[in-house]
Amino acid sequence: MGSDGIDNLSLDSIRKTLIGLEDTIIYSLIERAKLPLNSPAYDSSHFPGFHGSLMELLVKGTESVQAQGGRYRSPEEVPFFPDHLPPPLVHRPLNCSQDLPPAAASVNVSKKIWDFYVNQFLPLLAAKGDDGNYALGVASDLACLQVLSRRIHFGKYVAEVKFRSETEAYSAAIREKDKDTLMNLLTDSKVEAMVKQRIEKKAKVFGQEVTLNDTSNSNDYKVDPSLVSRLYDEWVIPLTKDVEVEYLLRRLD
Amino acid sequence: MGSDGIDNLSLDSIRKTLIGLEDTIIYSLIERAKLPLNSPAYDSSHFPGFHGSLMELLVKGTESVQAQGGRYRSPEEVPFFPDHLPPPLVHRPLNCSQDLPPAAASVNVSKKIWDFYVNQFLPLLAAKGDDGNYALGVASDLACLQVLSRRIHFGKYVAEVKFRSETEAYSAAIREKDKDTLMNLLTDSKVEAMVKQRIEKKAKVFGQEVTLNDTSNSNDYKVDPSLVSRLYDEWVIPLTKDVEVEYLLRRLD
Repeated sequence: MGSDGIDNLSLDSIRKTLIGLEDTIIYSLIERAKLPLNSPAYDSSHFPGFHGSLMELLVKGTESVQAQGGRYRSPEEVPFFPDHLPPPLVHRPLNCSQDLPPAAASVNVSKKIWDFYVNQFLPLLAAKGDDGNYALGVASDLACLQVLSRRIHFGKYVAEVKFRSETEAYSAAIREKDKDTLMNLLTDSKVEAMVKQRIEKKAKVFGQEVTLNDTSNSNDYKVDPSLVSRLYDEWVIPLTKDVEVEYLLRRLD
Repeated sequence: MGSDGIDNLSLDSIRKTLIGLEDTIIYSLIERAKLPLNSPAYDSSHFPGFHGSLMELLVKGTESVQAQGGRYRSPEEVPFFPDHLPPPLVHRPLNCSQDLPPAAASVNVSKKIWDFYVNQFLPLLAAKGDDGNYALGVASDLACLQVLSRRIHFGKYVAEVKFRSETEAYSAAIREKDKDTLMNLLTDSKVEAMVKQRIEKKAKVFGQEVTLNDTSNSNDYKVDPSLVSRLYDEWVIPLTKDVEVEYLLRRLD
């Protein structure tokens, strides 16, 4: 997002942000894929002496530190554990789009993101194994989760722009609480297909082995490009659309 | 490093690790370069109410969380603020090279890494500006610092392998505490030139804008490739060699 706030929202500026986040998503997946699965870190019964999994403990701790730095003052950032976060130490005005309608801005699918990432996607991304260094894996997980959350919750801005461009059609469906019509209105299958193609291409470019000899034409990528496309197909795009629908349902509150 | 510990150290396995870290370094620089400099975060007089800069506070806090996850049990990981770190909650055996000679393993150039990164390199990497969200920038800084530290401190393993391959020559220079001879012995200018060329090429590949149309041939990279080469030339390679020399000086203790 630029520095002009919601009034200068455009589908074009939003697309730029989303396209930039694709790159970050790929870089972070590549990093996590280097490490083994380390499954005990995700098992809430594995470590006696504290409640929940080691991953939960480390993510809560890291989010607390980042909250002090003011991370969650930005409406583009949604914490996974919003309870008991310390107040920010920084009170400088933020240069980002602030002004979503308050009820709508509260749309939150963090639990679903956490759940698909840990339980479904991570076992596909990381090879089986346990190197004992769970802190590295979880730090890498958090980088993945944060950028996925940012990407998916950006659906609020996408929905806002779509709402503005077809206010009447959306308003009618919102008043009817007609989720199917909303889903149809906001779905653009051509764009979705293009996004999946692009992310797969990016996974090939960013995940290739670069040597000083001319580019090796091997198909040995650091992350399976089709898995990245599947991530978008099964989780990122559907959850973004869920965010859009939930946002729109509260848009006229 | 593989899982076989120091006894199976080879220059080849070490080179593989170093080459893999190059990719991580580029990804993390690209992420930091997206954000403005946000200079108040690095200014120790800027925020009243706590000691040091906001960056120091956030890095200390994050390292504490990661220490609980066991990050610093690995000899490949060196914290920037080792004092008062909490003990790890995890006691599973680590799958990494553990067995550097104890005195040698204590070589630590973290302060130099922090100093060149914050004071010299970051102002070249990030554009001037202040978006008020210091937590994002500092989280990104920490990712850069951690991988740079890992890369530079890996010099210990490099030095160990070189020592083993030419034990007599190194031992004589070590006994004389002859830093110049050590530096000459361990310097391979051809390899250094190749590394700088390769990292610049990687910055071009990983930092390009990828679109669905055939690869754009623009020279608009997310991070200036010559800056990445300069990072290696001015800081990463010299500091790695400092680590190697310091390691060797303690190798026979």
